[in-house]
Parts: sequence; C-alpha cells; structure tokens
Amino acid sequence: MNVFQLKRLLLGQPLSNQMIVHEKITKKKALAVLSSDALSSVAYATEEILIPLAAFSVAAVAWSIPIAMAIGALLLILTNSYRQTIDAYPGGGGAYIVAKENLGVRAGLVAGGALLIDYVLTVAVSVAAGVENIASAIPYLREHKEAAGLLVICLLTLFNLRGVRESATIFAIPTYFFIFSFLVLIGSGAYQLAVGGSPQGVNLIHETYTTIPLLLAVRSFASGCSALTGVEAISNGIPMFREPSQKNAKTTLVYMALILGAFFLGITILAHMYGIVPREGETAISSLARSVFGDSFFYYMIQVSTALILVLAANTAYAGFPRLASLLAKDRFLPRQMAVLGDRLVFSNGILGLSLVAAFLIVMFEGDTHHLIPLYAVGVFLSFTLSQAGMVRYHLREREPKWFQSLIFNGLGAITTFIVLIVVAVFRFSHGAWMVVLLIPAMVLFFTRIHKHYLTVAKELSLVGQNPPGKLTPLKHTVIIPISGIHRGVLDALRYGMSISNDVRACYVELDPEATERLKGEWTKWANEIPLVVLKSPYRSVITPLIHYINDISTITKDDLITVVIPEFVTARWWHQFLHNQTALFIRTALLFNRGKVITSVRYHLRES
Amino acid sequence: MNVFQLKRLLLGQPLSNQMIVHEKITKKKALAVLSSDALSSVAYATEEILIPLAAFSVAAVAWSIPIAMAIGALLLILTNSYRQTIDAYPGGGGAYIVAKENLGVRAGLVAGGALLIDYVLTVAVSVAAGVENIASAIPYLREHKEAAGLLVICLLTLFNLRGVRESATIFAIPTYFFIFSFLVLIGSGAYQLAVGGSPQGVNLIHETYTTIPLLLAVRSFASGCSALTGVEAISNGIPMFREPSQKNAKTTLVYMALILGAFFLGITILAHMYGIVPREGETAISSLARSVFGDSFFYYMIQVSTALILVLAANTAYAGFPRLASLLAKDRFLPRQMAVLGDRLVFSNGILGLSLVAAFLIVMFEGDTHHLIPLYAVGVFLSFTLSQAGMVRYHLREREPKWFQSLIFNGLGAITTFIVLIVVAVFRFSHGAWMVVLLIPAMVLFFTRIHKHYLTVAKELSLVGQNPPGKLTPLKHTVIIPISGIHRGVLDALRYGMSISNDVRACYVELDPEATERLKGEWTKWANEIPLVVLKSPYRSVITPLIHYINDISTITKDDLITVVIPEFVTARWWHQFLHNQTALFIRTALLFNRGKVITSVRYHLRES
Repeated sequence: MNVFQLKRLLLGQPLSNQMIVHEKITKKKALAVLSSDALSSVAYATEEILIPLAAFSVAAVAWSIPIAMAIGALLLILTNSYRQTIDAYPGGGGAYIVAKENLGVRAGLVAGGALLIDYVLTVAVSVAAGVENIASAIPYLREHKEAAGLLVICLLTLFNLRGVRESATIFAIPTYFFIFSFLVLIGSGAYQLAVGGSPQGVNLIHETYTTIPLLLAVRSFASGCSALTGVEAISNGIPMFREPSQKNAKTTLVYMALILGAFFLGITILAHMYGIVPREGETAISSLARSVFGDSFFYYMIQVSTALILVLAANTAYAGFPRLASLLAKDRFLPRQMAVLGDRLVFSNGILGLSLVAAFLIVMFEGDTHHLIPLYAVGVFLSFTLSQAGMVRYHLREREPKWFQSLIFNGLGAITTFIVLIVVAVFRFSHGAWMVVLLIPAMVLFFTRIHKHYLTVAKELSLVGQNPPGKLTPLKHTVIIPISGIHRGVLDALRYGMSISNDVRACYVELDPEATERLKGEWTKWANEIPLVVLKSPYRSVITPLIHYINDISTITKDDLITVVIPEFVTARWWHQFLHNQTALFIRTALLFNRGKVITSVRYHLRES
Repeated sequence: MNVFQLKRLLLGQPLSNQMIVHEKITKKKALAVLSSDALSSVAYATEEILIPLAAFSVAAVAWSIPIAMAIGALLLILTNSYRQTIDAYPGGGGAYIVAKENLGVRAGLVAGGALLIDYVLTVAVSVAAGVENIASAIPYLREHKEAAGLLVICLLTLFNLRGVRESATIFAIPTYFFIFSFLVLIGSGAYQLAVGGSPQGVNLIHETYTTIPLLLAVRSFASGCSALTGVEAISNGIPMFREPSQKNAKTTLVYMALILGAFFLGITILAHMYGIVPREGETAISSLARSVFGDSFFYYMIQVSTALILVLAANTAYAGFPRLASLLAKDRFLPRQMAVLGDRLVFSNGILGLSLVAAFLIVMFEGDTHHLIPLYAVGVFLSFTLSQAGMVRYHLREREPKWFQSLIFNGLGAITTFIVLIVVAVFRFSHGAWMVVLLIPAMVLFFTRIHKHYLTVAKELSLVGQNPPGKLTPLKHTVIIPISGIHRGVLDALRYGMSISNDVRACYVELDPEATERLKGEWTKWANEIPLVVLKSPYRSVITPLIHYINDISTITKDDLITVVIPEFVTARWWHQFLHNQTALFIRTALLFNRGKVITSVRYHLRES
C-alpha cells in the first residue's frame, strides 16, 4: 500500500464539486450545532473564578456568586448586542467581516488575528478540559493528559479532513445529553440542599461576605469571563437557519444565553453551597458531581457528557478556523494554499494548521487548562470589542429603522467588552495574556507583509498596460550537457539536446586524465557530431567548474537562455537512487537563483536493478 | 553568513590535488601514531577481567593474574603472526585485502564488515572510556557522560573533516605522555609494595587461589581479550615507515607488543595487589592511581594521559573507517559516495557515517564502556581469524622462502584467534555480542546487494557490443505547457516552448468557467499562435487532469518524448516561495516514474517582492 492508497483509506474517495450542499436546519438543531462552544465553558468557568478566591482564603470563596452574577449581566449585554449584528449581517457577521467593513482593513486584520488565536485556543482548552474531566473519573489518565489530548486532536483532524457532512442530528446528541445531564445535576443538588440532606453536610452556607481586596475580585472576574467564549457563534451561522433565518437565529441566541446563564450561575451557586474548593487532579465539576451523586452512574454521566460537549466545542473550531483562514487567504492576507478546497471539499491546509498549533499548545502547557485559559479571554474580548465597535459605525452610517436603539445596545456592548478586554489583558497579563498581546500585532504585521508580497508579484507579472507583441517569437538558447562518461542515458540526452537546439555542447569534468583519453576515443565513435568540452578540476569538485563554464558561455553567446540538459537515470526502486551521485540535484541547486538558465533532466529508466 | 561560508570557516579552504603527500616517519613516531589504539586498551581491559570475577567473590579476583598472563600469551602469538603479514603485504595488509585475495570475495566482505563494526566500536568505546576516566576525577561529569561523549565525537568529526595533515609529532605527544605516566604509575606502585608501605595496607597479597568455576575463568578471559584490539594497526600502516619499511614495521610491532604486554600485566598485578575492586562511577585505573598517589598531581596526570590516549585511539578509527569504506566503495560494495575525496582531501562521507553510528551507540548504551565492550571483541577476533587464515592460504600458494615457518606461525595464529572468537561469541553472546553476530551477515548481504545493483546498472547502460549509430538523430517530441493564467512568466515559457519544438500546446485546468472565458479573451490577444487546451476538473485537482492529458497525448502522438514546460517564478527571498503553489513540484513528483517525459521549469525571477 502506498501513501496515496493510505490517504484514500483514511480520508475516503475525492468528492465532486456537485456535493457542496447547504443544509437548512431547525432552531432546535441549530442550538445544538452552534452552542456547544458557549455551553461547554460551563465546564471550566466556575473553577476559574474559584481558583484565585480560594488561593486567598476559604471564606473569600463566597464572592464567587456576585462575580458570577456580574458575568451573567455581561452575557445579557452581549446577547443583546449580537441580536443587532444578526439584523445587520444576514449572511453571517464574523468579527473579521464586521470590523473590516466598518472600521477598515487594519481593524479587520486585528479581529482576524484575534479570532484565529481564539479558534486555536478553543481546540486546546476544550480538549485539555475534556481530558481533565475524564481524568477526574479515571485517575490513570492524569499521568497521560498530554498524550490523551494529542490523540483527541489527531482524531478530530482525521474526522474533519474526511469532511463528514455536518449532520446536525449527530451533533444534537451530545449537546442535549449535556443539557439533560446538567439539569439533573443542578436539580438534584438543589433538591438535596432544600431537604437539608447534603451528603457532605459541611460549609453549606456562608451568610456573610468577608472583606476581600478589590483587585482580587477583579482578577477572579477576569478569569470567569472565559464563560462567555463562543457566544458569537450563532451570529456567524445565520445562513444555516430555516427561513425566516434572522428571526430564528435571534430566538435561538436568546435560548442559548438563557441556558448558558442558568447553568453557569447554577453550577457556581451549587459549588459554593457544597463547599467545592479547587484541587489538583480533579475538576470542580467532578468534585461537585461526586458530592451530589457519590460514586454512582450519574457521576460518570456528568463526566462523560462534559467531555463530549468539550470535544464538540473543539470540533466547531475546525469549522471556523479553516473558513476564516480561507477568507483571509482570498483577501491575500494568508498564503493562498489556505484557500484551496481539498478533494474532500474541506480546507485541508487550514485543518492541519489548526491541529498543529493546538497540539503544540497542548504540549507546551502540558495539557493544563488553567495555564491555557489566561491566553483565551484576550482574543475573545478583542474580537467582541471590534465587532461591537464596527456595529456602532454601521448604525451611524446606515441609519436603518430603529438605528438609534441598536446604536445604544451595540455602544453599550462595545464599551463593556472594551473594559473587560482591558481588565483581562491587565489582570491576566503575567499569567500568559502577554503572549496574545504580543502575538496579535505580530500577526497583523505578518498579514500585511503577505498582502504586500502578493500585490508586488501580481504587479510584476501583470501584462496590464503592455502592448501585445503581435507575434510570439522563440527564444535563442545554447544547450550544455554535463556528462560523466558515455552510456545509453547520455546518448538519449545528446539526442534530446539536438532536438531542442542547434548549438549543443557536451561538457566533461576531468578528475583523471587517463579516463579523459578513453572517453575521447569512445566519443568519436558514438557522438562525433557534438563537441566535447573537457574542464579541469583541481579541487575534485564536479559542480564548480561546470557552473563556471555555464556562466562563461552565457556571457559569451549573449543568448536569451542556456538550457542545461542533465542525463539522469531512474532506478526501478526508489531507494536504489541513494546509491548514485546526486549530481543533477546539486547542479539544479547551484543554479537555482541564477537567471537565464533552464535545467532539464533527461531520465533513463532502468528496468530491474 | 550562508551555509557555504560557515563550512569554509569550520573546515577551511578547499585543498588542491597536489596537496596529497606521503610523509615517511621514523620508528619512534610510527609507534606513537599506530599504537594508540592498542595501548589505550590498557585503560579498560583490566577492569573487564575484574568485573566477572569480583561479581563472583572477592577472593576470585586473584585469578585475574593467570588470566592476564593467558591474554599476554595470546598477544605473543598475534604479534608473531602479524610479523608474517608485514613480510607478505608491504603495501599494508588489512584483513579485508588479505581475506579477499586469499580466501575469496565473501571472506573479504565478512572481514570488511567486521572491521567497519570495529572502527565504529573503537570510537564509541574509546570516547566512552575517556569520558569515564575524566568523570572519575570530576564527579560532576558522571551525570553528563553521554553529552560529553557526543561533544568529543563532534570535535573529532570537525577535526577529521578539516583533514589536518597527520602530523606525527603532534600525535607522538599524547602517546609518549601516556607511556611515561604509566611507567610512573607502575614504578611507584611497585616501589611502595616493595618497601611495604602501601597507603591502603589492606588485602595486599592473596597467596592462595580459591576454586572458581572454569566457565567463570573463561568468561573473564573473553572480557579481557579487549586488551588486544588495535594490534593489527602497524601491519596496515607499513607504507608510512621509512625504508626499509618492512623491517622497521616489524621492529616497531615488537616494541608495541612489549609495551602493551608489560603495561597490561603490570596494571593487572598492581590492581590485584592494591585490592582494587570495580565499582560504579570510578574506573579501575582511577582507583589504582588514587591508591598509589592519593589525590595528588600524579593522580590527575594519570587520568588526563589515559583520556588523551583514548581520544587518540578514537581518532585512529577516523583514518581507518573512511579508508576501508572507500576501498569497499571502489570495489562497488558500498555506495560510491563513500569513495569521493572531499575538497579537503578526506573521505567526508565516511567520516560523517562513522560519527553518526558511533554517536548512536553512545546514546543507545548511555556512554557506558561495560555495555559497549562485549560488542567489540567479536569483530576484532573475526578479522584476526580471517586475516591469519588468509595468510595460511597465502603461504601454501606462494611458497616464498621460509614459507613453512611462516605457515606454522600464521596457522597457530589462525587457530588461536578462531578459538578465542568462538569463546568470545559464546560467552559474551547474551551481553551484546549477539548484535554483532547478527549484524555481520546482514552487512555482507547488504554489500552483495549493492554490488549486484551496480553491476546490473553498468550492464544496462553499457554500449559494449552495440554498434555506433553512424549518426546521432534528434528525438521527436511534443511540448505541453500547463498554465494557470497568462502573465509575463507564462509568456516566457511559451516562447521557450516555441524554441524547442514545433508542436506546442498550452494546457489550462478549469476550476471556474468564468475565469476560462476571461483567459480565452486574453489568449487571442497575447498568444494566439499556441493552441490552448482547457481541461475540466470535477474534483478541483489541478494535477490529475493534467497528468491524464499528458499521458493521452503521449499515446496519440507516438512521439519519442513529451516535454512538459512549467512556467515558475522564483521569489527574491527563498521563504517567499512558500506563499506560492508548488504546482511544479507536484507535477514533477507525479511524473517521476513515468517514462518518456521530460519536465522543464522556465523560471521567471521576481525582482523585489
């Protein structure tokens, strides 16, 4: 089996262009497909709030509830803002498009860079958190978090390279399973508290809030903002909805926000009531589920459903990243290879790029969610801010009906997310946000450099403004054929040389004068028509004298071109090729940046050896 | 600075052929140059005898003395045998040559394989032992033995790639320093024992030999035979001696054997008298030197001189391995690249190959001498045996004066070394000798396969027995030019196509029908002379339809060849190339094993972008 057959086995047969179809789905299914990223943050956001508080004091943990409420309020503002975006961009208003159209290309590139980083982090964080939840239930995995994370990324890559049609039904299962599981968890927890029969029976209620430093509360808030990642997904996916698609998308967005808010607040309150304190090797969700259910079936159900929705969230990035990369590539801000639709109708290069960077992050941060999350929020809130600010400019310009109300909503969104952005960047700067703060301008620079390169190339190659020649004329060229002796392959090359030019010279580098004499004898017998040039080589290099000769001829003849015809032989088995001198390769490399040279190999195919 | 300048800085300017000179040296210098490999084994051989004995019981260690004496007797037999080889092969009689000429090619290849393995192990063992001796004095190094070993190999590689003329004077210093140091060590030790004032005062004499199993004694003997590695070096290096070179070589061989025997026996007896027991982290030489000298200047002198002679011994393999590999390559048993003299007049590929394998062994065996030595002796005694057996056949055939006496000496040598070979292979089999036992036939197979390949290729390409054509005729070919649009680079390719054939077709793979219409419009304006073929591509692949078309044309035209001219552009900075589709590369790869296709790139050099 060769590598092509292996590819077909793993990825399936190529798909024809006619296979591109657009499935229109109901609100229920759309909720499942588009909200996994947002909902999955319930799995880690509460814990992120608790960690700084618990590190300060046990009593400080009580502050998690007001902080979660503040984040809930932020969710309301965001939801309302994105309802405006849905109205304005029925074709899907990603931050890149909204920022580029309303705030200019540079703002668009900042948003694009932030989003690309976010997609990568969605994969890394979701996979790491998914593995951590399973590892909470199966301690063996704790030692192998990185390996498990890399395995999940490999499977996601393969799955997405195959480009399985996004069957909404399949995606609906884990999402609704998650919603069901967490309803059971929150319901059971609340019921146990209500009847006073908590299995732990400790620390259930702190009525008083101890005084904590304001900065601690802000830091805790900044950590918890990771709950809001993925909220924008529905506004990007409007074309997926059945008609009236905008109305349906807005309704779905509200449902999603309500579920997310309720789960996040519910889990945070329960975690507090049950006295859950973050600890090494077990997630807060796992601790809570264990407190509520003990080591029962329901405990494992919670862990499995959490892991599943996290993997699903990671999978959404595999749709978003390649699509955004292809948009950037079509606008010539990324290498054009990113815009090439592979034979399975997916942007294969984007998928591979995403996997590689996410895998690198998993390895670099040892598969630890807490180390990855601080990098996350900066990009998310930067794209929120740019998107909302873009909407403000949009309303001011377009003045559509009810524009003023929308302006107020988006303005509020822009200001709030901007403040959160600053908070997140400052308070999580030393935990890793600095990387993103440095990376985004670097990416924008990278985008603009690529853009400039493509523009210059297009200009240099362009025929615009030039006059057609009337008639194409052939070029004048001399053929030089380097040889190391005379054999069948050389004769083929000589005959080929004769067929492409009238000025053909064979060229022999002398390493041993006796061999030259023998060659000259053979030459008159076999190839007397073609002049044989013998070059001396004091340093035993074959390449150097040849290159000198080629350059000399090029100067003397003043031809348009020199064609170097290299007789090569191709062995029947590819690894036999290593037994032969790679002279052709060396000549090619030596002349690579040399203008006016065409290098041609005439290959003699060996039969069996 | 580019990679070529870096190479020049590290390796120096190329050397001209005229720089090959042959220095003739005196016996004193020859002893220094040729005996470091043999003498350096004093550094580890005693310890190798002690380890199995000490593992059995403390009292068993007394047997080290008779065992060392047996090895001394073996040294006498070997010395006498190699004196005969010197007489018979004044040009240098390596085991490969002697075995090949007298016992046939296959025996020669076995000897060649065994010798190559030996050279690799000489480097690995000597470097590891050198590092261990320094690490005995500087405990910090014990944790970094592998890294230190790899560093030494890097330096040896660089040194040998520069191809510094083997200045005998420089090489004489470490050898005579070693001889002097060990004379001081053995002398001082003996003196202290004589006056009865050993600093340790313990375990000085065992008058009685406890009974030990015979197999243990044999195993210990097999381990100690590593003392005899390198004895053959002088018989290989005869051309280096001043006239009368054979007589001088024989004298030098006797001196070397005497020094080696005296040092080996002296160290073994002293080690026993001073009650040296092998232990982790310190070599036996270091323990002995510490017992004799305490922590004084002399102790460090011994360690430094031991390390130096070991590195020098490793360096001798850098002369031997590439030379033998080049002999094998000239006989077409190894890839011909091994026989290419680099621009510094050294066999660079052989040097690099040796370093890579030795470095691999150092890493695999964690820089531990005791793990490497069991691999060593099998190859050494196999080449001894083949060389001596070859000499037996030589005497029977040539019947030179005094041939019968020589026959007896070489016969004795052959039988003895054969017995030792069996002993070593059996008793050290499970310690690693099995690898060599398996590796040697594998190498012989590899050599013969390579040989067969070269013979077949030569036969297939040969013009012998063919009649010259009278006159070379040009080939008939059609030119196909794949294009993705029309720009300056394409026009160059079209003009080139016109200059090499009268049948030129441009070929466009349609991904978007609108783009095709635009292209057709432009085409009539710019290149109407050349037919434009439009190919459909349902799976969006550019390559597949093109390859099909090329193959179809090839069938239809029945030409000798198809020339595919690919318009490429070369960016001014090499890394910009990644921003462009690698279509040329893909086409080249797809047609690699496809007969009758010549692929040519016409490159348009971009100026600035």
